[in-house]
Amino acid sequence: MIIVMRAQATAKEIADVVARVESRGLRVNISRGEERTIIGVIGDERPVDGTQFEVMDGVEKTVPILKPFKLASREMHPADTLVPLDGMKVGSNKIAIIAGPCSVESRQQILETAFAVKEAGAIALRGGAYKPRSSPYSFQGMGEKGLELLAEAREATGLPVVTEAMSPEQVPLVARYADVIQIGARNMQNYALLNTVGESGRTVLLKRGLMSTIEELLMSAEYILAQGNSRVILCERGIRTFETFTRNTLDLSAIPIIKELSHLPIFVDPSHGMGRRDKVAPMARAAVAAGADGLIIEVHNDPDHALSDGAQSMFPSQFDRLMAELRIIAPAIGRSICLEPVARRGWAR
Amino acid sequence: MIIVMRAQATAKEIADVVARVESRGLRVNISRGEERTIIGVIGDERPVDGTQFEVMDGVEKTVPILKPFKLASREMHPADTLVPLDGMKVGSNKIAIIAGPCSVESRQQILETAFAVKEAGAIALRGGAYKPRSSPYSFQGMGEKGLELLAEAREATGLPVVTEAMSPEQVPLVARYADVIQIGARNMQNYALLNTVGESGRTVLLKRGLMSTIEELLMSAEYILAQGNSRVILCERGIRTFETFTRNTLDLSAIPIIKELSHLPIFVDPSHGMGRRDKVAPMARAAVAAGADGLIIEVHNDPDHALSDGAQSMFPSQFDRLMAELRIIAPAIGRSICLEPVARRGWAR
Amino acid sequence: MIIVMRAQATAKEIADVVARVESRGLRVNISRGEERTIIGVIGDERPVDGTQFEVMDGVEKTVPILKPFKLASREMHPADTLVPLDGMKVGSNKIAIIAGPCSVESRQQILETAFAVKEAGAIALRGGAYKPRSSPYSFQGMGEKGLELLAEAREATGLPVVTEAMSPEQVPLVARYADVIQIGARNMQNYALLNTVGESGRTVLLKRGLMSTIEELLMSAEYILAQGNSRVILCERGIRTFETFTRNTLDLSAIPIIKELSHLPIFVDPSHGMGRRDKVAPMARAAVAAGADGLIIEVHNDPDHALSDGAQSMFPSQFDRLMAELRIIAPAIGRSICLEPVARRGWAR
Amino acid sequence: MIIVMRAQATAKEIADVVARVESRGLRVNISRGEERTIIGVIGDERPVDGTQFEVMDGVEKTVPILKPFKLASREMHPADTLVPLDGMKVGSNKIAIIAGPCSVESRQQILETAFAVKEAGAIALRGGAYKPRSSPYSFQGMGEKGLELLAEAREATGLPVVTEAMSPEQVPLVARYADVIQIGARNMQNYALLNTVGESGRTVLLKRGLMSTIEELLMSAEYILAQGNSRVILCERGIRTFETFTRNTLDLSAIPIIKELSHLPIFVDPSHGMGRRDKVAPMARAAVAAGADGLIIEVHNDPDHALSDGAQSMFPSQFDRLMAELRIIAPAIGRSICLEPVARRGWAR
Repeated sequence: MIIVMRAQATAKEIADVVARVESRGLRVNISRGEERTIIGVIGDERPVDGTQFEVMDGVEKTVPILKPFKLASREMHPADTLVPLDGMKVGSNKIAIIAGPCSVESRQQILETAFAVKEAGAIALRGGAYKPRSSPYSFQGMGEKGLELLAEAREATGLPVVTEAMSPEQVPLVARYADVIQIGARNMQNYALLNTVGESGRTVLLKRGLMSTIEELLMSAEYILAQGNSRVILCERGIRTFETFTRNTLDLSAIPIIKELSHLPIFVDPSHGMGRRDKVAPMARAAVAAGADGLIIEVHNDPDHALSDGAQSMFPSQFDRLMAELRIIAPAIGRSICLEPVARRGWAR
Repeated sequence: MIIVMRAQATAKEIADVVARVESRGLRVNISRGEERTIIGVIGDERPVDGTQFEVMDGVEKTVPILKPFKLASREMHPADTLVPLDGMKVGSNKIAIIAGPCSVESRQQILETAFAVKEAGAIALRGGAYKPRSSPYSFQGMGEKGLELLAEAREATGLPVVTEAMSPEQVPLVARYADVIQIGARNMQNYALLNTVGESGRTVLLKRGLMSTIEELLMSAEYILAQGNSRVILCERGIRTFETFTRNTLDLSAIPIIKELSHLPIFVDPSHGMGRRDKVAPMARAAVAAGADGLIIEVHNDPDHALSDGAQSMFPSQFDRLMAELRIIAPAIGRSICLEPVARRGWAR
Repeated sequence: MIIVMRAQATAKEIADVVARVESRGLRVNISRGEERTIIGVIGDERPVDGTQFEVMDGVEKTVPILKPFKLASREMHPADTLVPLDGMKVGSNKIAIIAGPCSVESRQQILETAFAVKEAGAIALRGGAYKPRSSPYSFQGMGEKGLELLAEAREATGLPVVTEAMSPEQVPLVARYADVIQIGARNMQNYALLNTVGESGRTVLLKRGLMSTIEELLMSAEYILAQGNSRVILCERGIRTFETFTRNTLDLSAIPIIKELSHLPIFVDPSHGMGRRDKVAPMARAAVAAGADGLIIEVHNDPDHALSDGAQSMFPSQFDRLMAELRIIAPAIGRSICLEPVARRGWAR
Repeated sequence: MIIVMRAQATAKEIADVVARVESRGLRVNISRGEERTIIGVIGDERPVDGTQFEVMDGVEKTVPILKPFKLASREMHPADTLVPLDGMKVGSNKIAIIAGPCSVESRQQILETAFAVKEAGAIALRGGAYKPRSSPYSFQGMGEKGLELLAEAREATGLPVVTEAMSPEQVPLVARYADVIQIGARNMQNYALLNTVGESGRTVLLKRGLMSTIEELLMSAEYILAQGNSRVILCERGIRTFETFTRNTLDLSAIPIIKELSHLPIFVDPSHGMGRRDKVAPMARAAVAAGADGLIIEVHNDPDHALSDGAQSMFPSQFDRLMAELRIIAPAIGRSICLEPVARRGWAR
């Protein structure tokens, strides 16, 4: 941390700040410039709340130097983390595409969709059994019945399953059925939930909150990693801005930024960010071109009759065409689309 | 809902939209303008997902007409809701000031602070026992021990207690100690938690999320109201914007907007929005001048040694001065500051 | 400026950065911490582009220490600047209220409105002759004829006149008629215009852009001050956020922040921020309670027939009531509303 | 426009609204729903200010139906506009890459850079002679001397020239030297400037403002088109959001949205949005994958010694590698990179 003193700061004020820094077990480096004195704090500043210095007399501001996340940082872990998923390695140069409906709605729907996305080259099936909805009057998901149908689709197609848990008490049940537990954007800072999925040891797909900074996303990943669970996949899904033509603004610049800051794989969900299926393919292509390690895309066997998010769900034929486009783009950056899922092996439960 | 057709929409496309609307049990009013045809949907549109029409051929956009919240709306409940709190009525023309430390840290701290804020005119004591922190390495609150200290402070001072619950499983315990359960900004859309506090019947102070629109705040209140619990106090605490000089941007315009849209009382938390104690008083005065029904302010007996949020906690003497200023401002809009809490009566549990 | 090196930075990389800093005529202070080396730059960093260091090998980031504005900063000019306006001093403890219509529309309109706002206690008349409109098809103002009508209203009422200039070539003409030249929010970073009004020597009311930071507002003031014109009044008028219930989000926290950073007076325009007249009074009261030095409010003698911004223009009777409320609030912070404009004296042109 | 009445609106209130609509020369369609009456306005609503109705008794809100832009809309002009640039057609399936330094700094710099970008496949040269800078103390560009050097680089390389004009009075001079006049982000709503470049007839590259919606960008294009100048190229360059890791958030979703709304070509400037050269290539690739008609990229022969924006300027070798990647990506959407500029023909002045 750097503590910047005001231009008029007195020797007494500087001494008081130094004394408080030292009382916290840290040391200082004092740099007297032409206009200001700057106090550099030496030692691990992370457990220290910098704002306590900002309200001291003579202090103008403090500037954190160390990033608040450690386990999630590339500095601590220079090599890319590869998250095993059903025999493939997420985060490698094979780009992983996850697809499926917003919600599980019926046996026929989930099975038809699962076979369709598998045929197009998806390596995992998504589908919600518990749905966070802004209205208490909206369809809230099928619950455990939905989880059972997902398991059936897995048996039938061999695709591993990605599905959301919304509260700590749902985690054990969801973990019994899911290969990957999704934490939704609204729950990105639900710390009780993060701790629980951290403890579960199951792979976690952690979505960035609508108005969460990249640093906050990595801090939320840190909660999971701090529980000893390193199987974390990050996911950009659009942030809230002033623009109203799109539901959210997909922040693709987060991809190269996260690649620099962290070793964790970063996915993109272009469906929620755009909100309309005809806008999904351009953003999916762009995400791959920008370096995303994978995509999670909403596809529905019959989107016109979907119970939720029908408008943003692709038809299987659209998804198929998109996959063909992605196969052309990936080699531009030395990657490929993970076409054929390896035979499903037993996965430790 | 209004469905706006594209300028070039064909008769067939219009007929298809009408057919789908009618298949949902609703009726239509068709208005042919000079440039566009508009289809008005008649009936309760709330359970119908409008985006399903947006992806039909010939449709340009849909516009919701009915607000998605009902129980929280002033339309359904024209009179102001008065929330009883320890003998006073929150939402009346007496403005309620809640004060206390960010976190409960020790017996001495909470008792000293409680007496100080009571003397200055606060009508309830705030203090966190469970703290949502962006870092897993930060102080996370004293837990149940903190709740016990809050109860002791209540016995000693007669002030009712406001404290946060962070997950559904904490609610029963927190409800045993708290007069008002606070839902923090990061949990505003934690629906499992909203349902649980709704069921608890305890008064809820619901903070607006950093990233949440006013409509979303009212939808989250709707979750609580839908459980039969009408004791809900809303609270603006700053939204995230591009400005970086303040931690958040306190959106005081939310006060008159919410007063128009809803019957629920609206409070303001100027401490979290500003992040520095010297900026709290101006915003507290502004909130009262703008029509807030109450304030919740961080005050600490010794902020320089606070374990969390010390920089934004007021000294008791600053709080005292602020209360004097508020007593001058309130009459400008025909209100007064609720100076003397009535004798604590037994509160139904 | 502080240059933060990466954890793995080599001695060679550090030496290269130091060499480049010194080649810019600056000196360094090197602080070796446990995790990182930090290079403090000593000397005036303002003319140096910090990002040039950020792309050097081994550099993690740079942090500016000195504020980029000088003339506008309170550090360079600790005392409040008092801007003379027709015998009164803007920025003193007398709060100045400017009022009038959005646009000048007719002789009767501007005269009736001018007398009405004078009677209620306004100390200056606002009214646009040149209007920046987002549509080329909207009413663009009366132009020079409007300026003449403003001058007539000034002769009739004695109120000084505030009106906008939109381009450098309009400045000489506007300066001939106006006591205060307004720079609108969309032109806050129109540097050619800022230079021209700086040279004009006329008092400038500089509105904050919709998505401009406080620092950028002060940098734009710096452009005017750098031309030797110190008669600058800043004005907050709402920033763009994700919230859609209000047209913009009035950022009242900018008031105490600007008071700390700068010596210039800060006004608030609650009319443009809110967009609806029934929401103007609460925000006007809040602005005064938060410490604004003045307000600029839209009032129209017949808002239902206004050519622009009718919905946000107050009726004279509403404005009168608001002024009464403000007179109650101002004393809470040791100020008063400047009720009676002193007799207009000749103003130097 | 749709006027939504409140649930409790009386017959008298409805009649008053209808009367006012009709007094504006428009007709109505009244739709009585179960909860609300809706008044559809028939006729050209564009010149009518909808907010005037919002403040009438009994009105809840108004909803515009027609887009406020006409000439810029795809509805009025279904075919893509192809903007001729030196023999090629911007907006066709050949993607146009413009490159060059932020500022013209010297004869050697601009010539070396021009030859380098030409060799890599750029079809035009960018370079600023007049620079809008947030600080009055920063380098403001070489002015006319810079224009002369650009002309010399054009003669030497055959590349047409793109350069910025900052105020109406600069336009005639800039038009004498430039093939394309750039309007910078801060001037997107400088209407005097828009009118002047509209009159000039010269091709305009119009950058989206940091704070501007897509609709506002198209409204600013409308100002130029309304002057009879249809040679307008739009350019996304990043919007301001809460995220601070990137300088701005490049809104690539604007590409498919603008393609739907307008017939004008849309370019992307990844250099300003990202602010660091190592992040430019991923966003450039993403922009092409998302369907951009062209890119404008900062390249400098010696970025370490650039006078402005050095950190975001690519080395020529980086640009060369990027061009190779783009050539792989473009075919994924049936396009190609415009490799070889046709021989420069005389361009009408």
